[in-house]
Amino acid sequence: MSACEFESLEKSLESHLPEAELVEVKRILFGKETKGLQELCHCDQGVLEKLPPANVPFLSLIIMKLDLSACAVEAASERDFELKGYKFDAAQEQLRPPRNIRVGLIQHHIVLPTDAPVLDQISAMHSRIGEMVEVAAMCGVNIVCFQETWTMPFAFCTREKEPWTEFAESAEEGNTTRFCQELAKKYNMVIVSPILEREELHGTLWNTVVVISNSGNVLGKSRKNHIPRIGDFNESTYYMEGNTGHTVFQTQFGKIAVNICYGRHHPLNWFMYSMNGAEIIFNPSATVGALSEPMWSIEARNAAIANHCFTCAINRVGTEHFKSEFTSGDGKKAHHDFGHFYGSSYVAAPDGSRTPGLSRTRDGLLVVEMDLNLNRQISDKWSFKMTGRYAEYAEQLAKAVQHDFKPKIVKE
Amino acid sequence: MSACEFESLEKSLESHLPEAELVEVKRILFGKETKGLQELCHCDQGVLEKLPPANVPFLSLIIMKLDLSACAVEAASERDFELKGYKFDAAQEQLRPPRNIRVGLIQHHIVLPTDAPVLDQISAMHSRIGEMVEVAAMCGVNIVCFQETWTMPFAFCTREKEPWTEFAESAEEGNTTRFCQELAKKYNMVIVSPILEREELHGTLWNTVVVISNSGNVLGKSRKNHIPRIGDFNESTYYMEGNTGHTVFQTQFGKIAVNICYGRHHPLNWFMYSMNGAEIIFNPSATVGALSEPMWSIEARNAAIANHCFTCAINRVGTEHFKSEFTSGDGKKAHHDFGHFYGSSYVAAPDGSRTPGLSRTRDGLLVVEMDLNLNRQISDKWSFKMTGRYAEYAEQLAKAVQHDFKPKIVKE
Repeated sequence: MSACEFESLEKSLESHLPEAELVEVKRILFGKETKGLQELCHCDQGVLEKLPPANVPFLSLIIMKLDLSACAVEAASERDFELKGYKFDAAQEQLRPPRNIRVGLIQHHIVLPTDAPVLDQISAMHSRIGEMVEVAAMCGVNIVCFQETWTMPFAFCTREKEPWTEFAESAEEGNTTRFCQELAKKYNMVIVSPILEREELHGTLWNTVVVISNSGNVLGKSRKNHIPRIGDFNESTYYMEGNTGHTVFQTQFGKIAVNICYGRHHPLNWFMYSMNGAEIIFNPSATVGALSEPMWSIEARNAAIANHCFTCAINRVGTEHFKSEFTSGDGKKAHHDFGHFYGSSYVAAPDGSRTPGLSRTRDGLLVVEMDLNLNRQISDKWSFKMTGRYAEYAEQLAKAVQHDFKPKIVKE
Repeated sequence: MSACEFESLEKSLESHLPEAELVEVKRILFGKETKGLQELCHCDQGVLEKLPPANVPFLSLIIMKLDLSACAVEAASERDFELKGYKFDAAQEQLRPPRNIRVGLIQHHIVLPTDAPVLDQISAMHSRIGEMVEVAAMCGVNIVCFQETWTMPFAFCTREKEPWTEFAESAEEGNTTRFCQELAKKYNMVIVSPILEREELHGTLWNTVVVISNSGNVLGKSRKNHIPRIGDFNESTYYMEGNTGHTVFQTQFGKIAVNICYGRHHPLNWFMYSMNGAEIIFNPSATVGALSEPMWSIEARNAAIANHCFTCAINRVGTEHFKSEFTSGDGKKAHHDFGHFYGSSYVAAPDGSRTPGLSRTRDGLLVVEMDLNLNRQISDKWSFKMTGRYAEYAEQLAKAVQHDFKPKIVKE
C-alpha cells in the first residue's frame, strides 16, 4: 500500500478496532465522540430543529453516508465527491442564545491537465466549485472556504513564471471574485476565496484570500503572512510576505480570519488573528505527504486550543504533473510532480476536540456546525488569555529580535 | 472499559490493525516508523556502537520487551515499571559529528497514601525514583527528568495548606536536591528535578525545577511561568507566576530548558525558551484525563515542530485520594480525588515525529536517544526562525496588550 492509496486514518480505525477500544481511541485522538448529523442536509434548508438531540452518540464515522437525506447525498455521489458532516455543541447559557452556524470546507483536485489553456483550466475549476458549493447550500452552509489558490495548479515548484502568473487576478474585480459574488448572493453564503492576486497598480503578485459577504459585496482581502522557502519551493519567486497584517472580518455569521498555508507553522500568526477577535480561523493550504503529513493534524488543532477559537484546515488532493521537470530540492533527480496532496481537511474546536478528516484521495465537502458560544465558554474555563503574561512577552520578544540579543544561558 | 483501564493507544493499534495499514497509521500519527533499540540497555554502558543500523525498520512497538539485554529489562520488570526506548536519527553531516545523547523520562504513582506522615511519603518517593534512575543509568541515560512536584501528591486541588506546604524544600539545599546530587554524581547524569520550592528568605513558595549537573553541582533553577486557575485547581493558592524568565541550562549533553505543566498551553512560553537557545525542552506535568487528554499529544509536539527542538512531555499516573473532600469546580458533588493522571509521557522531535507514549496506567521509564544535530537540520529545512517576522510581532503584541487596543476588524 502506498501513501497515495491509503484513504484515511479514520476508516482504518473504524474497520478494525473493537467497539470498546474504538471509543477510547477516538476520545484520545479526536477529543470526544463526534455526532452523526443524520438529518444535516435538506433541500428545504431550515434544518436546525431536526438535528438529533445532543445526547445521541455518534457511533460510526460513516453514518452520514447512510442516513443523510437524499438530495445532498445523491448530488455529492453523482458529482463524485465525499460529503461529511459533524457538529460541535456548546453548553446552554442563560443570557446568550446559541450561535449555531455552519461552515463548509472544500478540497479538490485540479480539473484539467496543467498544460491546458489557462482560461479553460480556470473555467473548469469554477464549474467544479460551483457544483460543490451548490451541495454546501443544500446543507445549509453559512460560510464556505476553498483551498489555497484554488483556481490553479500549485505550480510554484516549477520556478517558471509563464503561464502561472496569468492565473493571477484582481482581488476586487477579477473574474473569480465576480464568480464568487454570484455564488454568495445566490446562496446567502459568505465565500472565502484564496487566489493568486495581481495588484495592477504596483505590478505585484500576492497570495491572497478574498472574503465575500453573503450580501455579495467584497468585504476585504487578507494576504499570506509567511512565505515558505523549502524543498522544491521558494514561493517568494512569485510573491512576497503579505502586508495586510491580521485582519478579522465581521460577517453576519461570526468573526473570521484566514491564515494561509505556511502561516500555520507560526503560532504567533494564529495568535495575532485571535488577539484581533477571530472566532474562526481558516487555513487554506496546499501541502504534500512526504513534507508535512504528520504535522497536519497537530498545528491547526494546537492553534484552536491555544487561542480558544475554531480552526479549519483545508488541503488540496491529488498529484499535479507539470510538463517541464524541476529540481526536487533534496538531492534527488529533477521531477515532474511535487508529490501527493493528501487532503485530510478538518475542523478543530477550542476544547481540544476535532472532526475526523476528509479523505486523503478524494474531492470532498466537510460541513461542520459549531456553536460559537463554545469559544468564550472554553476561554472562561482555561483562561489562557488571562494567564498569558503577554506584556512580558512583548518586552522579551522585542529584545530577542535584536542582533545583539544575549540569550539567558546558565553554565557551570 | 473505563478511561482508567485503557492501557494505551499504541497497544490497541498494534493489536488490531493489519500490518500494511498499521504502517500508514503510524506514519500519520507518529510521523515515521520508530526503531527498536534492541540493544539499548547494557550493564556495561558504552553501547552506542551496538545499536541496530539506521536502515533497520522498527516493526513492533513492543520489540523492546523482547530484545533488550537482560539486566535492565529484568530490573524494570522486578520493580514493576514499564521500560521503553526509541531513537531519533539525524543525517550524517560532513563538518559536525553526531551529537547523540540519551534522555530519560520517568512517570510514577505516589507510593504511600496521601495521609501518611510527610517524611515517610517523601522517603518512599525517593526510594522509588532511586530504583528507577538506576535502570536509567543501565540504559546509558545522560539527562533524566521527573514529573512535576515529584516528591508529593498533586494536592493543590484540596485548598488546604497543611500538610502540603511541608513538602516544600529549598531548591539549593533541600533534602531532595541533595538526594538528586548524589544520583547525578553516582551515574554521571544530569537530573531535572521538579519540586515544590520554599524560598526561606521571603517566605514564598514556588513551583520550581532544580537542574543538577552531572558533576553533582546545582546548575540552577527555573520556575513555573504560567499558573492554572481551572476546575478544582487554583494553584495560585500555593504559588504565583514564576520570576525566572526563560532560563536555558548548558549541560555537557546539550542546552536544556523546562516548561512546567500549564505552560505547555502557551506557545509563547515554548517559543521564548527556544529563542534563548534550548535544544530540548522538558514539560513535567500533572494532568488528568477528563481535563486535558486530547490536548496532551498535540501541544508539546506542536512546540517541537514550531521551535525546531525536541520536547519531552511527562505526566504522572494513578488516582490520588485525599481525606477531606473538596469542590469539584464543575457543579458536581465535592469529591476526594481529582481524577486519573494518565501518564502517556512521550518525546517529540523537530521533524514532526514522536515516540509512542508510555502507559496510561503504569509507572514507566522512557529512554530516548536523539541526535541533537537534527534541530539545526530541520531549522535549515523549514526555516521558521527566518520566516517568522518576529520584529513585527513584537510591535503588534506590544500594542495588543494595551487596554485601549483597537482590533483590526473589517465590517460591511
